[in-house]
Amino acid sequence: MSEATANIGVVGLAVMGSNLARNLASREGNTVAVFNRSRAKTDDLVAEHPEAGFVPSFSYEEFAASLQKPRTAIIMVKAGAGTDAVIDELVRVFEPGDIIVDGGNALFTDTIRREKAVRETGINFVGMGVSGGEEGALHGPSLMPGGSDESWVTLGPILRTIAAVAEGEPCVTHIGHDGAGHFVKMVHNGIEYADMQLIAEAYDLIRRGTGKSPAEIADVFAEWNHGELESYLIEITAEVLRQVDAETGKPLVDVIVDQAGAKGTGAWTVQTALDLGVPVSGIAEATFARSLSSHPEQREVSGSLPGPLESLTVDDADAFIEDVRLALFASKIVAYSQGFDEIRAGAAQYGWDIDLGAVSKIWRAGCIIRAQFLNRIADAYAQTPDLAVLLTAPYFVEALERAQGSWRRIVATAATGGIPSPAFSSSLAYYDGLRAERLPAALIQGQRDFFGAHTYKRIDRPGTFHTLWSADRTEVEAEDTH
Amino acid sequence: MSEATANIGVVGLAVMGSNLARNLASREGNTVAVFNRSRAKTDDLVAEHPEAGFVPSFSYEEFAASLQKPRTAIIMVKAGAGTDAVIDELVRVFEPGDIIVDGGNALFTDTIRREKAVRETGINFVGMGVSGGEEGALHGPSLMPGGSDESWVTLGPILRTIAAVAEGEPCVTHIGHDGAGHFVKMVHNGIEYADMQLIAEAYDLIRRGTGKSPAEIADVFAEWNHGELESYLIEITAEVLRQVDAETGKPLVDVIVDQAGAKGTGAWTVQTALDLGVPVSGIAEATFARSLSSHPEQREVSGSLPGPLESLTVDDADAFIEDVRLALFASKIVAYSQGFDEIRAGAAQYGWDIDLGAVSKIWRAGCIIRAQFLNRIADAYAQTPDLAVLLTAPYFVEALERAQGSWRRIVATAATGGIPSPAFSSSLAYYDGLRAERLPAALIQGQRDFFGAHTYKRIDRPGTFHTLWSADRTEVEAEDTH
Repeated sequence: MSEATANIGVVGLAVMGSNLARNLASREGNTVAVFNRSRAKTDDLVAEHPEAGFVPSFSYEEFAASLQKPRTAIIMVKAGAGTDAVIDELVRVFEPGDIIVDGGNALFTDTIRREKAVRETGINFVGMGVSGGEEGALHGPSLMPGGSDESWVTLGPILRTIAAVAEGEPCVTHIGHDGAGHFVKMVHNGIEYADMQLIAEAYDLIRRGTGKSPAEIADVFAEWNHGELESYLIEITAEVLRQVDAETGKPLVDVIVDQAGAKGTGAWTVQTALDLGVPVSGIAEATFARSLSSHPEQREVSGSLPGPLESLTVDDADAFIEDVRLALFASKIVAYSQGFDEIRAGAAQYGWDIDLGAVSKIWRAGCIIRAQFLNRIADAYAQTPDLAVLLTAPYFVEALERAQGSWRRIVATAATGGIPSPAFSSSLAYYDGLRAERLPAALIQGQRDFFGAHTYKRIDRPGTFHTLWSADRTEVEAEDTH
Repeated sequence: MSEATANIGVVGLAVMGSNLARNLASREGNTVAVFNRSRAKTDDLVAEHPEAGFVPSFSYEEFAASLQKPRTAIIMVKAGAGTDAVIDELVRVFEPGDIIVDGGNALFTDTIRREKAVRETGINFVGMGVSGGEEGALHGPSLMPGGSDESWVTLGPILRTIAAVAEGEPCVTHIGHDGAGHFVKMVHNGIEYADMQLIAEAYDLIRRGTGKSPAEIADVFAEWNHGELESYLIEITAEVLRQVDAETGKPLVDVIVDQAGAKGTGAWTVQTALDLGVPVSGIAEATFARSLSSHPEQREVSGSLPGPLESLTVDDADAFIEDVRLALFASKIVAYSQGFDEIRAGAAQYGWDIDLGAVSKIWRAGCIIRAQFLNRIADAYAQTPDLAVLLTAPYFVEALERAQGSWRRIVATAATGGIPSPAFSSSLAYYDGLRAERLPAALIQGQRDFFGAHTYKRIDRPGTFHTLWSADRTEVEAEDTH
């Protein structure tokens, strides 16, 4: 193999990499070079998909030689040390102007570090979020590339051929420099955690409140999927709830162990938000709900804790379900608003010029949180590009006004009836906090000044003040050092 | 200065360091060497406190020479790079067997790194949490030292002379090796965040629910301080609420800007808990409530968001206040239970042999969260040292049973009335999650298997399973790789 015939290459041919390579090969104009550390995977892929016209290679040198310049390669290996090893090899065989794309789920700070290191060689490094799982990789993912403007010139046209399409537009945009793409992908996953937890709480409330079976609740979700909640996650919830276990004849959801796994991106989203000072409480509650579920030794000893004297009774099941639907919608608005707030804050912190409307548009198809709803977010940012809080856009304010009675009833009902609804109640508390004219944070400032001389500001004039609590309790102006 | 006369030294003579040095000097048997980078602070301290008999020095060499062996020095400088610089200097002038103590608010992972580096020189490095602020440092702090057993032999007797005393016992114990002390101090601060937020919510609910003035609510807190809520934070809350602004004649709490500051330990506690998979939702909500309060640009645009049609009305103020008291008590039990859960998980992760009962005992005096309540925690661990969840101890179960009706009413009332209660509601949701026989986490596992082939476990037999969702929907055994 000495002729450079491929315009794009894929390194790492596990299922995500193979599917992305097949997707690329299926599009007009692409010739795809493929490489895997172990030869067998390459041979299998080429043999199983002769239609793809793959250009296989069995060393990094061969792989580089098979690519037209600027060489462009997408790495699809498990995030971590393996990624660094592949990058080192590609840097060795590539030349200035070439493009290395990491399509794994890297932490954005790793991507910033790698981009900086690779840039010094003159090679472009692009961290790219890829959402949509195995099916998305094969048929059209939502793609979130970061990296330099130079790399986007070559990469943009190729990625547009393979991305999912929403209302005629490919679900890919140049998010911003260095780690911007992986940052946005991280927040996407955080929002996904919140959305899934909210759906789980809605299901639990309906089941415990009305006694309906999973199959009946599947119908409820299927119906919701025709309205403003229309989304992939609502759709597959109906599918999962309808599934019957062949072995026992029971609903599958009752056979599955109720301990939710996690792969870390939810935690990353919350940890990053804490650094940025952005309250993503819905995502945090969703992440913690998974942790709580995964400690059987604690849940076992807690099984006998006292619950409410009277269990939840619902008189009008239809009205209750409609309340749950609106509570879900309102809480979902909060979760997305918090997520976009984190992207806004991250962009400010890291100097990325992120178009929030464009982000919402590329999430409309291909990814796990794809939903009609994202068009409303795009509208909101189109109208007011520097919107400080997404949920204050007119469409969402109207929706929240319409939903809030139901939302409040559901949170109150869950609290009274002993049904855990951490994401529903947290979202409502955030909403009420945001709209509060005065918050008791003033008392917290007073406490902090009392025990730690942390000082406070006054509402009536500038400056920083401290009360001499352990002396005569007069107020003094303080240096603003705390 | 060539004679080694001091048994303990302090480096860094800002207010915390000076106060700790004065505290040390005031105890029988201690002679205290003091050193500060700028000479003036040393001169001032020595001149202002002739009674202390300080041994001043003006270079690290002199400082080392003034200390008896094993030389023992407590660093009290601002956490960060400055700490590393001082450690380097001390390592230069100290000898194997000497002891360097960092009394700043270091992140425990930094302490682990430093301990490892210093240990190679044969010198002992101890990261020590110091709680109680400036007053505590002077009159008796709660001390949380980590580090080696060897260092504890010398350090223990000295620290016992200066620590706060609770029921005859000094508030200091050897927490565990390397970063254990700073870890426990971090969680202490996280619990402090939760406790303060819960108190703030209680105040806000009473004020908005009953229309009582801050001074009247001060009386409520003062009364609470005679019961099971007795604690320093409740006590100072009464003081802060009673304070009248001399300038305007208004309650001070109404003059203070309602944006709560934070110095990062709350965020660290939550970030660490996310790494450990421990749901500290109360601490997270408290940290996020501070962030939310500190974004005036967002709160301004959100000021017109729709609230509930009817505002909160309380018929029986006394009954409502008693409900709030019990909701506060129950939520506080959850916050402490979550905090101790994090310490338990941290100890397991980092191989520390932490005595949780001893931790609760050294928090009974000297520190910000000091409270009667901590005796009950000590009792619980005395009874069951390997308690999996603190709140399942009989005393707490009884308290929760007694409180839960009130707790549920208050969360429901807050939701209905539009009063933000993120920590109250989150604590209740955690409690109800913990005691739930089945959680909707099973649905989340189903969704994850649907879109990402993440697999699930079955309740009826071992193994890992996957449903072929996009094929014939039969179930297959899967490798446990997701």
